[in-house]
Amino acid sequence: MKALVIGGDGYCGWATALHLSNKGYEVGILDNLARRHWDAQLGVSALTPIASIQQRIQRWKDLTGKTIDLFIGDITNYDFLIKAFRKFEPEAIVHFGEQRAAPYSMIDREHAVFTQVNNVVGTLNILYAMKEDFPDSHLVKLGTMGEYGTPNIDIEEGYIEIEHNGRKDILPYPKQPGSFYHLSKVHDSHNIHFACKIWGLKATDLNQGVVYGILTEETGMDEMLINRLDYDEVFGTALNRFCIQAAIGHPLTVYGKGGQTRGFLDIRDTVRCMELAIANPAEAGKFRVFNQFTELFSVGDLAEMVKKAGISVGLNVEIQNIENPRLELEEHYFNAKNTKLLDLGLQPHYLSDSLLDSLLNFAMKYQNRVDKTQILPTVSWHRK
Amino acid sequence: MKALVIGGDGYCGWATALHLSNKGYEVGILDNLARRHWDAQLGVSALTPIASIQQRIQRWKDLTGKTIDLFIGDITNYDFLIKAFRKFEPEAIVHFGEQRAAPYSMIDREHAVFTQVNNVVGTLNILYAMKEDFPDSHLVKLGTMGEYGTPNIDIEEGYIEIEHNGRKDILPYPKQPGSFYHLSKVHDSHNIHFACKIWGLKATDLNQGVVYGILTEETGMDEMLINRLDYDEVFGTALNRFCIQAAIGHPLTVYGKGGQTRGFLDIRDTVRCMELAIANPAEAGKFRVFNQFTELFSVGDLAEMVKKAGISVGLNVEIQNIENPRLELEEHYFNAKNTKLLDLGLQPHYLSDSLLDSLLNFAMKYQNRVDKTQILPTVSWHRK
Repeated sequence: MKALVIGGDGYCGWATALHLSNKGYEVGILDNLARRHWDAQLGVSALTPIASIQQRIQRWKDLTGKTIDLFIGDITNYDFLIKAFRKFEPEAIVHFGEQRAAPYSMIDREHAVFTQVNNVVGTLNILYAMKEDFPDSHLVKLGTMGEYGTPNIDIEEGYIEIEHNGRKDILPYPKQPGSFYHLSKVHDSHNIHFACKIWGLKATDLNQGVVYGILTEETGMDEMLINRLDYDEVFGTALNRFCIQAAIGHPLTVYGKGGQTRGFLDIRDTVRCMELAIANPAEAGKFRVFNQFTELFSVGDLAEMVKKAGISVGLNVEIQNIENPRLELEEHYFNAKNTKLLDLGLQPHYLSDSLLDSLLNFAMKYQNRVDKTQILPTVSWHRK
Repeated sequence: MKALVIGGDGYCGWATALHLSNKGYEVGILDNLARRHWDAQLGVSALTPIASIQQRIQRWKDLTGKTIDLFIGDITNYDFLIKAFRKFEPEAIVHFGEQRAAPYSMIDREHAVFTQVNNVVGTLNILYAMKEDFPDSHLVKLGTMGEYGTPNIDIEEGYIEIEHNGRKDILPYPKQPGSFYHLSKVHDSHNIHFACKIWGLKATDLNQGVVYGILTEETGMDEMLINRLDYDEVFGTALNRFCIQAAIGHPLTVYGKGGQTRGFLDIRDTVRCMELAIANPAEAGKFRVFNQFTELFSVGDLAEMVKKAGISVGLNVEIQNIENPRLELEEHYFNAKNTKLLDLGLQPHYLSDSLLDSLLNFAMKYQNRVDKTQILPTVSWHRK
């Protein structure tokens, strides 16, 4: 089966492309390489030295004999998109091709507008390409658990049965996203839902939690295949960033009280979830939603775990609660469901001491690449 | 108080601008005149001959002595927007400045993308302008009842209390919009809600039903002040279009079974609702939502009412159920709440025989301006 991985040069996309290739899919990568460009604009780079996409794909071929097609261009350009689709003829369209950092979207008006236009138009273009030429293909779209916010009731997977004034209906789960980026994903979800309904398309929205980890079976085969690992204030995410902070002797920066609870998963589970979603496509006309995470942690608890693991490998680790640049509840109820991917066969890699050791060792190996001035948050959610 | 009416050259915007001016507000109109341009692109024009915005404003001044400031430009251009805001210094920002036709958004990919980018970016720009320079101003934004779709439970005003697994929360009402246009309004709602929360802005979203009627106290003063009345398949809406069809001897075109039920209101109530929302601003940090309609009708029932009224003034009126170009339920539960504007003092003009007579007479007066080839629907929601 042919799977086109849009955004296949990014953190989740690259790992997924190799995993699918390894599992026997014919894989194409479509990417505008914007993520590398944003790093350059912000003056940051990943902890890990990543090869060019062309080098990565060549090394994968040298090692495994497997070819990955490459389409470099922007999905907001429909002419480019439809030509690439017609050439590759995807059966599964795996869509990671969006601006994915909340702080990036909150830098200023331009970044907010860019994020929403980029993400919404890219996804609209994919939906129209499916409608026009690939109505039987299956869209597997990366959403985010951040679409839900932190409601005071259990978070279901995409839909909720509501009983109200003696009547019942199953409706889209209400969304309370916490940044212009998260909002863009909510917009996408509504657009995809509608396109499935009117055009009979098949789509799966994977509302993913925070991903941690660096190695997958495939990206660990060779240093030239290494994945990116971000620690900076814009693209770095909680657990990965804590490990890097521990490795370089920087205090672990917990925003606010640290009671913010989120869903987390190992990147080895990300690639497996994508595989499961592709292998078990949605029905025509259905907008299927899975919550893609394996465990819930509070940010404060994670910091404590990294501190403990760091001390056990001889690091001196401090935790610092700093002023929260975001506007979010720091103590709240959070109980999200995640059984649908488990039902399809996901066997989670739960967060373990050995994973933390491995991440810490990675971070120590590349610690000389860290620019410490990029760690503390400067982008604020607040009105000045 | 200073009220800037964005989209003040359109059907609801023009009537509102004059009404607010008449009630003593200092009024500005900001408009890119796109609505006139889209008519030209589609080769249609309103039933009524509308004067240029400059002529309209001049006549208003001649008649009443009241000045309306005019800013011609596009709110997706932030430089233009912020300059106009700084010059006018609005206390109420009345936002009608969006592409407002569902069929227009469904013409093709370009129109879908245009509608969403135009509407979402325009509103984001307003929110940033408020955050930067006008944090105490009050945004009064035109939403649509179409954001809700047709759920099988009662429709509340913006929010719903949900009890789930023994816990409760008040959450945004789940949305099931039925076109890329309606989706753009849902995107706006989420964006505005978030901006209110993080920046402490004040906003009222008026989820308006289908507006009918032509005359208000102000637009009826002089033919040069006449409002637009649309009958074409793209911009014409149910009741107004039926009256024009009756006047020219065209069958009333009911889409599908006609059981589609919607909220309706007289344009005299639209302008009064805007006035009430402005006079009673939202609290800082609150995204307030009102449902703005006065009565519920099914499309089939409306056609019957127009038929009866037409016959009583000597017209020969037929009803034709044609294939529905939209994908929507044609028989469904629909019970939407609308008490919040009534609580603020709205005294509805309910649909009456005399209103229908007046509309029919208007339509007969201008019937020679009708292009019959523009009436039947050609834009389809369905995949070919």
